[in-house]
Amino acid sequence: MKEQEAAIILAPGLLTTPHAKVTHGLLRRSARFEICAVVDADNTGRDAGELLDGEPRDIPVFASVEDALEHSREKGKSVQWCVVGIATHGGRLTDELRVMLKQAAESGIGLVNGLHDLACDDPGIAAAANAGGVEIVDLRKPRGIDELHFWTGEIRNVKAPRIAVIGTDCALGKRTTTRLLTDALNNAGVHAEMIYTGQTGWMQGGQFGFILDSTLNDFVSGELEHAVLKCERAISPDVMLLEGQSALRNPSGPCGAELLVSTQARGVILQHAPGRPYFEGYEEEQFAIPSIQSEIELIGHYGARVIAVTLNGEGMSDSELQSEKARLADLLKLPVICPLLDNVDELTAPVREFLLEQTA
Amino acid sequence: MKEQEAAIILAPGLLTTPHAKVTHGLLRRSARFEICAVVDADNTGRDAGELLDGEPRDIPVFASVEDALEHSREKGKSVQWCVVGIATHGGRLTDELRVMLKQAAESGIGLVNGLHDLACDDPGIAAAANAGGVEIVDLRKPRGIDELHFWTGEIRNVKAPRIAVIGTDCALGKRTTTRLLTDALNNAGVHAEMIYTGQTGWMQGGQFGFILDSTLNDFVSGELEHAVLKCERAISPDVMLLEGQSALRNPSGPCGAELLVSTQARGVILQHAPGRPYFEGYEEEQFAIPSIQSEIELIGHYGARVIAVTLNGEGMSDSELQSEKARLADLLKLPVICPLLDNVDELTAPVREFLLEQTA
Repeated sequence: MKEQEAAIILAPGLLTTPHAKVTHGLLRRSARFEICAVVDADNTGRDAGELLDGEPRDIPVFASVEDALEHSREKGKSVQWCVVGIATHGGRLTDELRVMLKQAAESGIGLVNGLHDLACDDPGIAAAANAGGVEIVDLRKPRGIDELHFWTGEIRNVKAPRIAVIGTDCALGKRTTTRLLTDALNNAGVHAEMIYTGQTGWMQGGQFGFILDSTLNDFVSGELEHAVLKCERAISPDVMLLEGQSALRNPSGPCGAELLVSTQARGVILQHAPGRPYFEGYEEEQFAIPSIQSEIELIGHYGARVIAVTLNGEGMSDSELQSEKARLADLLKLPVICPLLDNVDELTAPVREFLLEQTA
Repeated sequence: MKEQEAAIILAPGLLTTPHAKVTHGLLRRSARFEICAVVDADNTGRDAGELLDGEPRDIPVFASVEDALEHSREKGKSVQWCVVGIATHGGRLTDELRVMLKQAAESGIGLVNGLHDLACDDPGIAAAANAGGVEIVDLRKPRGIDELHFWTGEIRNVKAPRIAVIGTDCALGKRTTTRLLTDALNNAGVHAEMIYTGQTGWMQGGQFGFILDSTLNDFVSGELEHAVLKCERAISPDVMLLEGQSALRNPSGPCGAELLVSTQARGVILQHAPGRPYFEGYEEEQFAIPSIQSEIELIGHYGARVIAVTLNGEGMSDSELQSEKARLADLLKLPVICPLLDNVDELTAPVREFLLEQTA
């Protein structure tokens, strides 16, 4: 796959929901794909960028794969890929997605799918891809042990300090914060690289990382260490920012200790949504998200310190968010920003300070 | 597989090392297999039980599969299974094991293998098993997503409190402690059931559990919850004891948060080896095991309390172990016992107290 190949994204019925976070990530940034159109009949005729954050991006939304491809052809784009841009319940391919993927393959378009359900396992899709001579990239296809790495401890020889971007829940913007902070650091002359751990990170063009949740548990720490070692050897950055998954105490699948203990990350950027009381998807059961103070203490127990807190304003008015931001900064004595509203450059100074500590 | 089928165990060159922990577990207890012989040329002629803990078990050690099978035949045993009883570096099948497994299959004996390397992927072994019409049970063969469960939150309806047996490192006796304490509780009239999370737990005849380290990361919490739900529905015990894996801060693969947050285990038995300064396998790199006090605090952060500490006396004389035991009991104000030396019944009172708290 070359850089920036033209692509359309499937987000049927979900474009304006958090379930389309893959699409949102690709609309924000995509070094791998040039996004030409999005498919979601509920938002036909709108601009996907405008729906995302009010900023038009000349990426129109269509009701069908056919319409999206026709538009792209009219604009002179040769679409190479059709990307599944949503997370479905249980990571399953819905019937609607299966039909769309088959149509795309029949039109000679390659498929990129990050769901647990593999597109290559669907006989109809596989036959269409085969007939059309197009590739199916199933990002979550589990890899065999010959392709996987165990943890070795070589991490202790890596010079670039690691900062983990940890969240108090899943789906609250860890990846976007990681991306924005990596860019801000590079703009400020600090050579920073992101280590991705999810499918979107790869889709966006990430060079170093792996897909954590479809890795056999025994190899998670080794794959993480391997990604860090590979990054160090290839580009020796000044700092690596590790994209976190889930949350340390998310009952549906805790995650984060791997980042802290297996890569020896000594710094943390903590992403938090003050307006979200319960873990995502468990609102009815009322599984409460623990307080941010207790999260900071827990992170301390893993040998890392929180450098800054980054907020997601979900469920809050602007004024509520601003007052919560001021309250938390005062309470925690830490820099607190809202990455989607504030200038992320504000975090370069505290990160530089952390890096000085680490190399002292 | 019926209960108690005759089996031989392969532990070539490793029977008296911690790498043979699968064998050790099966020698201590096996509801699934009747162990007839062990293969390890380094200990030919010895009794495996005597080598384990000084207690003869009439399980002789032989130099070869052939000798082990001949002995079993002479004793009138019809051996059905040949079990890989060691953990190798990286979970690989060594050439020596491959030869032995092929010999067993050629003799019409089924194979049980818990290594990451699958016996069924070895063409020689697979052909021999096929020709002999015998089964290959590869316990770590990753399961597809159709066979796996996501976490649902239904755990909150489970009445039986959960106690996690967590360790400060891997390979220090968590499974054995879980087993002994489960037995002690049942003997004392508390209906306890073990939830296994490793291959040996299954081999020993465990009814509820799964193999954590060969599960795709995204499904670990769901499989754990599913095992607990299945146990509750089938036998409604008074308490479930969850076998822990690795350690909360083992850099080569932290584990334990899943047990605490995904099953809402509110009690912990903490297994510790005071004579072991570094994480197993990383002695040279000197990755230090954190103090037991900080481990207890960390567990507290996950919402659970340590009910008792259980010690592994590795690397310590009897008197050193006894004095460390007294010191820790005094320091931590907790019951401290050595499960392989002391009477595990001592822990039934503190567990009962915990259960009363939970149902209060």
